[in-house]
Amino acid sequence: MADRDESQKKIEEYRACIDSLDEQIVDLLNKRAEQSLAIRELKPSAQMGLYDPRREEEILERLDTLNDGPMYGDDLREIYRTILKVMKEIRA
Amino acid sequence: MADRDESQKKIEEYRACIDSLDEQIVDLLNKRAEQSLAIRELKPSAQMGLYDPRREEEILERLDTLNDGPMYGDDLREIYRTILKVMKEIRA
Repeated sequence: MADRDESQKKIEEYRACIDSLDEQIVDLLNKRAEQSLAIRELKPSAQMGLYDPRREEEILERLDTLNDGPMYGDDLREIYRTILKVMKEIRA
Repeated sequence: MADRDESQKKIEEYRACIDSLDEQIVDLLNKRAEQSLAIRELKPSAQMGLYDPRREEEILERLDTLNDGPMYGDDLREIYRTILKVMKEIRA
């Protein structure tokens, strides 16, 4: 029982840490969305198409160099594919 | 032409900013994965099931209180559904 209580207490602590990480992640994702919106606005005058598959590939490839684990490259790419999809479709 | 060059230059600057944000996001996602793995390891001794839909719902609901935009709630939840899916399946 003491063991169970101890483990539950530790889980609560780790969850509080995750909550704090989520605050920072949400903040950074919104900052990233701001930059994406600013780029989208500039693309017509830069004579660039709205969708740039080469840039998307560049971002996905760069993830491997940034990744120190414990996530595997596949895990991170799965998350980033959703991030890039959302950023592409985001409403101003 | 000057206009086009100017816009392209600004886009490069915004992309450099996005690259720097991605470094921070990847780092935080890995920190989050570490916490998830630690929690998963404790769950048997805490006598908790490995999958906790209530905790997942709590995380998704909390996003709205953290979100200052420009992302919409739906955008953020779509990203987080993928994050939670990956974290759930992550290999130690």
